[in-house]
Amino acid sequence: MNVGHISPLDPDWFRRAAEHQARLTMPTGALGRLLELGQQLCAIQETLKPVAEPATVVVMAADHGIAEEGVSAYPQEVTGQMLLNFARGGAAINVLARGAGAQVLTVDLGVKQPPALDTAGLLRYPIAAGTANFLHGPAMSFAQAEQAIAVGRRLVTDELTPRGVQVVALGEMGIGNTTSASALTALLTGQLVAAVTGRGTGLDDAGWRHKVAVIERALARHFPQRAASVAPLAALSAVGGFEIAGLVGVALEAAARRMVVVLDGFISSVAGLLAVRLEPALRGYCVAAHCSVEAGHRTVLAALDLKPLLDLGLRLGEGSGAALALPLLRGAADIMREMATFESAGVRDREPG
Amino acid sequence: MNVGHISPLDPDWFRRAAEHQARLTMPTGALGRLLELGQQLCAIQETLKPVAEPATVVVMAADHGIAEEGVSAYPQEVTGQMLLNFARGGAAINVLARGAGAQVLTVDLGVKQPPALDTAGLLRYPIAAGTANFLHGPAMSFAQAEQAIAVGRRLVTDELTPRGVQVVALGEMGIGNTTSASALTALLTGQLVAAVTGRGTGLDDAGWRHKVAVIERALARHFPQRAASVAPLAALSAVGGFEIAGLVGVALEAAARRMVVVLDGFISSVAGLLAVRLEPALRGYCVAAHCSVEAGHRTVLAALDLKPLLDLGLRLGEGSGAALALPLLRGAADIMREMATFESAGVRDREPG
Repeated sequence: MNVGHISPLDPDWFRRAAEHQARLTMPTGALGRLLELGQQLCAIQETLKPVAEPATVVVMAADHGIAEEGVSAYPQEVTGQMLLNFARGGAAINVLARGAGAQVLTVDLGVKQPPALDTAGLLRYPIAAGTANFLHGPAMSFAQAEQAIAVGRRLVTDELTPRGVQVVALGEMGIGNTTSASALTALLTGQLVAAVTGRGTGLDDAGWRHKVAVIERALARHFPQRAASVAPLAALSAVGGFEIAGLVGVALEAAARRMVVVLDGFISSVAGLLAVRLEPALRGYCVAAHCSVEAGHRTVLAALDLKPLLDLGLRLGEGSGAALALPLLRGAADIMREMATFESAGVRDREPG
Repeated sequence: MNVGHISPLDPDWFRRAAEHQARLTMPTGALGRLLELGQQLCAIQETLKPVAEPATVVVMAADHGIAEEGVSAYPQEVTGQMLLNFARGGAAINVLARGAGAQVLTVDLGVKQPPALDTAGLLRYPIAAGTANFLHGPAMSFAQAEQAIAVGRRLVTDELTPRGVQVVALGEMGIGNTTSASALTALLTGQLVAAVTGRGTGLDDAGWRHKVAVIERALARHFPQRAASVAPLAALSAVGGFEIAGLVGVALEAAARRMVVVLDGFISSVAGLLAVRLEPALRGYCVAAHCSVEAGHRTVLAALDLKPLLDLGLRLGEGSGAALALPLLRGAADIMREMATFESAGVRDREPG
């Protein structure tokens, strides 16, 4: 498959955007982060009149063999049931995306009990019926990892590009996937497992200790002599998930096509980190929507050097935090396109100097 | 004028809302602050199906006599020029409110050089051509303070209630009004002037020291023996602004009519604090949209015991941060009304206990 090249952003567009912002009828810099976001949109779209629409939330779901180890508060069948809920429009991400005027694309990357329903709202590209239990072997083969990444890339090419999508939000669902994300974070950042492992959907203390122990045993098995940081594809195939690999592909292809890539919570941000490790120029296209409650998310955002827009105590995933951040992107773009300048409005600016 | 009574919120609505949220297809509490906001909306509207529309941003503008003391980086004529910019739809608040689907109501409470334009987008209720310079005497009389509050109340009654407005965001504009807000904050909270005085639209170090000294001299003059906290109407008439008094009236009447009151930055939050000191039951109806860069805002929010939704380095006012928070209110309401339950979606919940 044709792998798109990601162009580094041109600093000149940031400068030109900032110059335009200084002419708008407000004290210089008075809209803070919104102006930084506006500059980033200008640089990504190479225009001083950026837009943040259309926006699509890609929700990828898959099952995780590691769920057999009792690392989640919910039974594994919930992944397939939630996939149906997404396709029918009843989940949080559907509600929040509707509110933000964004489309939701639900994709089955490998759910163990896929819904029987044949619905237009559900795209099926299963790699396998869930990953293997990574306590006993690799979660997936290198070939499967590459296949899942290719699915993500193709979705962008086939589903998003024809609709002129400008903003892609990364969402996910998969019982057990915070365990996979914590293992990946430890491998990619060199942090201690206990420091980057959280309670997922709601583990108690004993459940959390068990989850940490499972991840530590798995990492010792796969990377007995591991250095500070493991190569992204090696980490992904050892302890990753199909939905995480799929999102890596979405991020890479979206940025290659100059779309904005909005990271949601812990899991989608880990996908973002994997993708940035593969293609460092991707980082300029990324927006961190929020900082999740889940331990490890802060570590991943720090590794990406991204500052989250929201901090609302969210820990749902699905792309929910990304959907809540979309109006901020829209505001940032609208300010660039629609605000009056001191000159056009006849408002006196402060004296220079 | 008929002063509406504000009913304290019924805790039972918070409980019922939380019970409904626990049945929605997500781990309990996984949407964090959005769920708290949803409960508050339910309690305000006394329903489990709250709405966050229609929303109106009331932008009140007035001039400040204290501007004569050189406490702002901008000339005083800018207040009237910006009023025209609001009425024509070119300011940041117009752009951001449009994006959020909210109406903007621009109100002249007493601008020194009001725009000649006779536009439908501009309501005129001037108390006087700006407040008096509060370094030399009271900013306004008690009668003027009460008149401005009454204007705010009447706007809610005449302009918002007939349209069924559910959410009112407080916005303001007035060269010199951070000086007034800092003086009010010192009086209402007992904090040191230097701790609650910021750089406004962009003062340098010398300008900031001058601003602090002006406020300290004014407070020493008006309240030579002041205790920790001064009565709200005494503080308002001594060092307040017409737009601040007007917003006090908007907040009081909106809450009396069970509307949500969204505080924006430092100045509108000071109006909120004055209003809560007058009517403590108002606090339950308030939402703090964001935390501004302006020193003193954090102090005011702490005095209100409100936690801001956004922290984006904003320092513009106009209601801009409140407009950016409106989609979060909408999301909170939509989640209550539109999300599927575990039962309705056929998704298995975790085992109790």
